[in-house]
Amino acid sequence: MSLLQPGLVRPRSSGHSRLTERLMRSAAETGAGAQVSTEEARRWLTERRAAHHFQVERIPLGELRDWSFDPGSGNLGHDTGRFFTVEGVEAVVGEDSGLAWQQPIIVQPEIGILGILAKEFDGVLHLLMQAKMEPGNPNLLQLSPTVQATRSNYTRAHRGSAVRYLELFASAPRTDVLVDVLQSEHGAWFLHKANRNMLVEAPGDVAGHEDFRWLTIGQIGELLRLDNVVNMNARTILSCIETFPQDESARNSDSFVQSWFTAERCRRHLRASLVPLRGLPDWVWSPYTIERADRRYFRVVGVSVQAGSREVIGWRQPLIEPVAQGICAFLTYQFDGVPHVLASARVECGFRNTVELGPTLQCVPGNYRHLSPAERPRYLDDILGADASRILYEAVHSEEGGRFLNAQSRYMFVRADDRTAAQEPPPGFCWISIGQMAALLRHSHYVNVQARSLVACVITGAASI
Amino acid sequence: MSLLQPGLVRPRSSGHSRLTERLMRSAAETGAGAQVSTEEARRWLTERRAAHHFQVERIPLGELRDWSFDPGSGNLGHDTGRFFTVEGVEAVVGEDSGLAWQQPIIVQPEIGILGILAKEFDGVLHLLMQAKMEPGNPNLLQLSPTVQATRSNYTRAHRGSAVRYLELFASAPRTDVLVDVLQSEHGAWFLHKANRNMLVEAPGDVAGHEDFRWLTIGQIGELLRLDNVVNMNARTILSCIETFPQDESARNSDSFVQSWFTAERCRRHLRASLVPLRGLPDWVWSPYTIERADRRYFRVVGVSVQAGSREVIGWRQPLIEPVAQGICAFLTYQFDGVPHVLASARVECGFRNTVELGPTLQCVPGNYRHLSPAERPRYLDDILGADASRILYEAVHSEEGGRFLNAQSRYMFVRADDRTAAQEPPPGFCWISIGQMAALLRHSHYVNVQARSLVACVITGAASI
Repeated sequence: MSLLQPGLVRPRSSGHSRLTERLMRSAAETGAGAQVSTEEARRWLTERRAAHHFQVERIPLGELRDWSFDPGSGNLGHDTGRFFTVEGVEAVVGEDSGLAWQQPIIVQPEIGILGILAKEFDGVLHLLMQAKMEPGNPNLLQLSPTVQATRSNYTRAHRGSAVRYLELFASAPRTDVLVDVLQSEHGAWFLHKANRNMLVEAPGDVAGHEDFRWLTIGQIGELLRLDNVVNMNARTILSCIETFPQDESARNSDSFVQSWFTAERCRRHLRASLVPLRGLPDWVWSPYTIERADRRYFRVVGVSVQAGSREVIGWRQPLIEPVAQGICAFLTYQFDGVPHVLASARVECGFRNTVELGPTLQCVPGNYRHLSPAERPRYLDDILGADASRILYEAVHSEEGGRFLNAQSRYMFVRADDRTAAQEPPPGFCWISIGQMAALLRHSHYVNVQARSLVACVITGAASI
Repeated sequence: MSLLQPGLVRPRSSGHSRLTERLMRSAAETGAGAQVSTEEARRWLTERRAAHHFQVERIPLGELRDWSFDPGSGNLGHDTGRFFTVEGVEAVVGEDSGLAWQQPIIVQPEIGILGILAKEFDGVLHLLMQAKMEPGNPNLLQLSPTVQATRSNYTRAHRGSAVRYLELFASAPRTDVLVDVLQSEHGAWFLHKANRNMLVEAPGDVAGHEDFRWLTIGQIGELLRLDNVVNMNARTILSCIETFPQDESARNSDSFVQSWFTAERCRRHLRASLVPLRGLPDWVWSPYTIERADRRYFRVVGVSVQAGSREVIGWRQPLIEPVAQGICAFLTYQFDGVPHVLASARVECGFRNTVELGPTLQCVPGNYRHLSPAERPRYLDDILGADASRILYEAVHSEEGGRFLNAQSRYMFVRADDRTAAQEPPPGFCWISIGQMAALLRHSHYVNVQARSLVACVITGAASI
């Protein structure tokens, strides 16, 4: 047990602003870093994709070797009891006679680590990024964090090779940890799932590897302007770092935002309880899918993976596949020169705390095509119909490729027109400055994963709003 | 819809430091306020206790009129489906083959409002406090917030009179709201319960009432030095207000504390699932109680209440009654003149997010009397054996009298000796400054209700650490 001098008191936010300066410096560095240019990084990703043997094939759910349906509930689980299960959930949103529905959901109570290693080269922080294959990615390989590990990884349930660099996160001295916060995952498909988002400064030399490259935050920002290059796990970690000084003013005071958010959490009532997967009303079982009779929202499918570079060399697993491409967009506005986004208070059935802040618009437009404009999600028509001059950022990104198959969304920042900005937003919406968003992201369960992907684009300089 | 000038940008923390100054001013005002002296407030409480007809009688659980046991599960619920239920919970703490147990638990998913109205008299903020009877309070009447309302109150499920002043909270303009945050309740007895803690500035004149008095924060601090005077709901709201400027330095940086807390949430695994109340192993049903065969921890009992001044004039209800008095204590230390408390990372089966910060010691010592010193809760012997010079604060307070019967704990601040302060704390403990604690209390699910009671003593000046 180490003895510390009781007289040794550290400043409250030791090096916080110094850290922000270092991160800003890294975000400003574009074009090339100490190790590779951004162009070379792109070529490296293409080269790694070609180098790896990785094949994903749809298979019948009944052929998910090592997985089985529980004879009673129909829940789908791994024979070891590890990884995750696909179960049914009943969600009741609203009071008393609220909206209620049932759907399949992934249950994975363990908390994983999503970690990026940071290190200074030539006085600039670089992040160690991985070229990683995931079976659900439409293009298989994307730029990923240094480490993405489930608890099953640590305990070697995969019986595969250890996760490279994991020990640098699991046992990092607290003083090397720059960011460390639990953040939720997709509330529509995961029940209560959260992962630990970490940025850790490497204590010394780090052994290189052909699947890893050091990039500046600015370089990652450049890659974030491209479709399907930077994976979701990298985006969520990046959203939790602060690359700009706190702005001093905002459209709404911090206490106003806090009270609005508290009121939304109280007003929106959510009860989610697990039910058997078999017998969910409106869901139909066929050899290859569990899907809704009307084919809306998503389906459960099975894949067989053959890989040469992942922890194990072949496995089968279920994935969730949305039926169409989604859209996640923030309306933005500069109030007195300070960039703001119009956040929505979203209820998703898998949220642990009922409400999180989401983008202004988050939906699969196809699900609402049959509805009249008044019944469609708020701002859908405004955002889809925005002319090019209002579109500040637009790229297609995909969601977690380890659990979701071809889950892609068009991520956008769209400038609000002056009239919208002048109006008090409707219930459930609030203008929040990027600085306020960053302050909330130091804590868990405020900002959902889709909104975090968009915040990451601002943090890294991919989007200028 | 009001039109706001897009150019109108407010400072981020509008009047925050001004608010802190106003709250500090109120905390400094002791002895007497604009309306009554502290002595008069004590007499007023005694007078109100005598004025109200209020009688609580234990009755057999089978005689809880309007309540019934579900024939299948044995769960105890109100016939309207409102208020709360007593169900069984199975908790598994730790991974894989972790510690597991079953117990009764109160399930009340609705979020209530705990609100205190504030108003300036002679330039000093005063808080409108209520003399309120609750069946579980050992002395029935205690000093309570302006409003404590469940959702059943708003919707008049009690079929009684409306809750006085409730409309000032439920529909307060956001600009009058000084504090507004969801905080958890007792995780050992409530499943996932949270209430909205509000401090709202009255917009104009407020009609008086014989059960209500305006007191300064300093006066409430004086009353907090007495046993069983200030109720739990008042204490939790008071813990969320800031009466001192942020301290600039602390033993551990904010990011260190955040990373420690995140690691504790990841390391401690909790799964809680509802099970039938009937058939819980180790729990015995008798006409008057559901209790453990070994009589440890707590029991479920029933009471009949006859009252003249509550929302309705007579009702019956179940309550949870702990078997003995508890102890909730913070070890404290001033590192370089900055007061710190030694927080513990506690897992309670009803916590929504696994871990919250608790006092250094929180237990019913009687439950551990049979164990050897090494097996007893950490710091139990140190705190119970502390000599008078180390005890900075000590008073008995009771927990929520609407759900718990005679649930009293000795709340203490005990100065740590230099040797303890010089050591790195054991796993699960961290030194946190009062300023850091206050910053965490702006957010939900960081600090448990027992630790909040202790923080309230510092906020109000009842305890000087």
